[in-house]
Amino acid sequence: MSARHAPIEYAQASPEVRAVYDDIMATRKTDWVNNYWKVLAHHPPTLQRMWRNAKEVMGPGAIDPLTKELIYMAVSITNACQNCIASHGAAARNKGMTDAQHAELVAIVGLANETNRHAAAFDLTIDEPFL
Amino acid sequence: MSARHAPIEYAQASPEVRAVYDDIMATRKTDWVNNYWKVLAHHPPTLQRMWRNAKEVMGPGAIDPLTKELIYMAVSITNACQNCIASHGAAARNKGMTDAQHAELVAIVGLANETNRHAAAFDLTIDEPFL
Amino acid sequence: MSARHAPIEYAQASPEVRAVYDDIMATRKTDWVNNYWKVLAHHPPTLQRMWRNAKEVMGPGAIDPLTKELIYMAVSITNACQNCIASHGAAARNKGMTDAQHAELVAIVGLANETNRHAAAFDLTIDEPFL
Amino acid sequence: MSARHAPIEYAQASPEVRAVYDDIMATRKTDWVNNYWKVLAHHPPTLQRMWRNAKEVMGPGAIDPLTKELIYMAVSITNACQNCIASHGAAARNKGMTDAQHAELVAIVGLANETNRHAAAFDLTIDEPFL
Amino acid sequence: MSARHAPIEYAQASPEVRAVYDDIMATRKTDWVNNYWKVLAHHPPTLQRMWRNAKEVMGPGAIDPLTKELIYMAVSITNACQNCIASHGAAARNKGMTDAQHAELVAIVGLANETNRHAAAFDLTIDEPFL
Amino acid sequence: MSARHAPIEYAQASPEVRAVYDDIMATRKTDWVNNYWKVLAHHPPTLQRMWRNAKEVMGPGAIDPLTKELIYMAVSITNACQNCIASHGAAARNKGMTDAQHAELVAIVGLANETNRHAAAFDLTIDEPFL
Repeated sequence: MSARHAPIEYAQASPEVRAVYDDIMATRKTDWVNNYWKVLAHHPPTLQRMWRNAKEVMGPGAIDPLTKELIYMAVSITNACQNCIASHGAAARNKGMTDAQHAELVAIVGLANETNRHAAAFDLTIDEPFL
Repeated sequence: MSARHAPIEYAQASPEVRAVYDDIMATRKTDWVNNYWKVLAHHPPTLQRMWRNAKEVMGPGAIDPLTKELIYMAVSITNACQNCIASHGAAARNKGMTDAQHAELVAIVGLANETNRHAAAFDLTIDEPFL
Repeated sequence: MSARHAPIEYAQASPEVRAVYDDIMATRKTDWVNNYWKVLAHHPPTLQRMWRNAKEVMGPGAIDPLTKELIYMAVSITNACQNCIASHGAAARNKGMTDAQHAELVAIVGLANETNRHAAAFDLTIDEPFL
Repeated sequence: MSARHAPIEYAQASPEVRAVYDDIMATRKTDWVNNYWKVLAHHPPTLQRMWRNAKEVMGPGAIDPLTKELIYMAVSITNACQNCIASHGAAARNKGMTDAQHAELVAIVGLANETNRHAAAFDLTIDEPFL
Repeated sequence: MSARHAPIEYAQASPEVRAVYDDIMATRKTDWVNNYWKVLAHHPPTLQRMWRNAKEVMGPGAIDPLTKELIYMAVSITNACQNCIASHGAAARNKGMTDAQHAELVAIVGLANETNRHAAAFDLTIDEPFL
Repeated sequence: MSARHAPIEYAQASPEVRAVYDDIMATRKTDWVNNYWKVLAHHPPTLQRMWRNAKEVMGPGAIDPLTKELIYMAVSITNACQNCIASHGAAARNKGMTDAQHAELVAIVGLANETNRHAAAFDLTIDEPFL
């Protein structure tokens, strides 16, 4: 058996899985659910738990929706998660990310990954004023 | 010889190093330079190159200054770089990051690191509409 | 020349390489060798060394065989190594991993990657009782 | 302000935070809460959310409690999270991990991190039978 | 919109982008530019900045050109960056890397990734003589 | 019990552990064993196995001894392993690494970590000529 699991489509889904799909579509004002959720659906408790987490963490709060997506992408680029970069890149575009902002995001992520290693190479301690 | 290098203070610094320190302080409107730069100063070409990069990437652009710092922190938290988390956390505070925003940043970074592994576990391909 | 090396099949293999393939098949009670070993075979000392390591570390010991595979997968998922997730996922299935266990493994790996970043974000020191 | 947040002790905690601490202690049959939770307590929604996640994922299920801790440690060692290694190492000891099992865990985690890079170096595709 | 950007070919490129392509080809004594640069070209300031960085860091210095490529590959293998492993592997071959050296490189990278986790597992402090 | 294990000193060591320590000192022409080995000594099979690996991989071969250490450091810096950076930094110094070479090593490691993320951000495929 492969690591890959066939996505569970709405038509095949159990009522508890459909309830999550319905809430995803209603929350995102879309008629479409992406594969991440359809694959998690093989284990409904995980599907329910992760959607509850995503809805709470990525929902309205103190950080605006576009910035939330940029933060998500920064992590996903650092971890080279292509599925995540693609889906959150699309979400960021939907929330207004411009080409120039995307280019700057990539530049910052690259730079931070570089300087993080400089700090490791020199075993940099935390500056006194930041303690 | 240890990985740790003594920071080169302004008083000991060569003119070319002082020129970078001066530009850092002028750009940041501060009278203080953090250890990252003072340790890079052992190799002036690297000091000059990295400051040129940081100034260009983190300077005014299409992404606002606070969001740039949040992106930088997202990478640094993912890589567990304590020096970087501390210095860019301080920079973010200076640019207005509130406690609530910090808490949400940490929550998003954690969640993205989690879902990135779910995507790996299932070898998720990129959804058709995101190609 | 590409990073990809053609697997060295049994028919083409030198006696020293065949000896390793034979031991892999005998140890695993199978008539098949996976590509990891067939690619390592381009450098016989590495093939011999790694098989000796794998046989010793993954062989009978204080941790049961299925749990050993789950630990291996936890690392491979964290590092997003698709070849490793697939081969050790198959090994885990052979040793009895159920769908429910696989779902829980993925959930734990995701959660740990999340909380590891929370710990980094707050520069959590080790609790006194754990020192 | 530092990345480090003072832990919120029970005596200072709000009722909603105390309710989580109480549930942690009851679930774990202990009179003590570790710093991870006391630091998350600065943002009660995160404290509540993460405890709900940990309770569900690490609670009784298809994988036995000790194996769950070994999986958690495998991730934490791979990410070099010292706080997490210490706290889940203690939990694993409480659930019966022996010295020999700990030594084997470390050996497997090391080996998997090694072979994961071999697979990357050769851009290993997934073996046909594992697809 | 996908994460993937069409490479900008010389014929379509603006004068400022062509100037970078020309310098890449002149510096490398080749008539060909790889996709990394052609994709960065969507944001000319990043293209210019990264080429300036690469030229300075990978150019003549205290470390010989082949060793520089081996170091670059060690990082890229650790991060599982297939594009980077391929392009710097080709560069290393051009600079004289033999099959035996490649095999040893992969072995060292694997071993270091293994021992790095052993050090994490035991929270190894730095030996007194190395401080 | 902590993750930290007290190093096993020569005087306390069993004959099988002493045999490894003796071989480490003889191979390295030194009268001293670093903590990595003294901590692994709690599990003699791991001590023996890892020393056999290190001796084979880091011993004489197609890559010169200093370059081997630089590759080891590149991985250790990328993974932020302070113990490893310190011990292999000392080994590299012993084998002739100059300050200028160290500075260039750090610069290359930083740059590669940066460009690895650019490649991820754009989901760069492998260039045709590198396949």
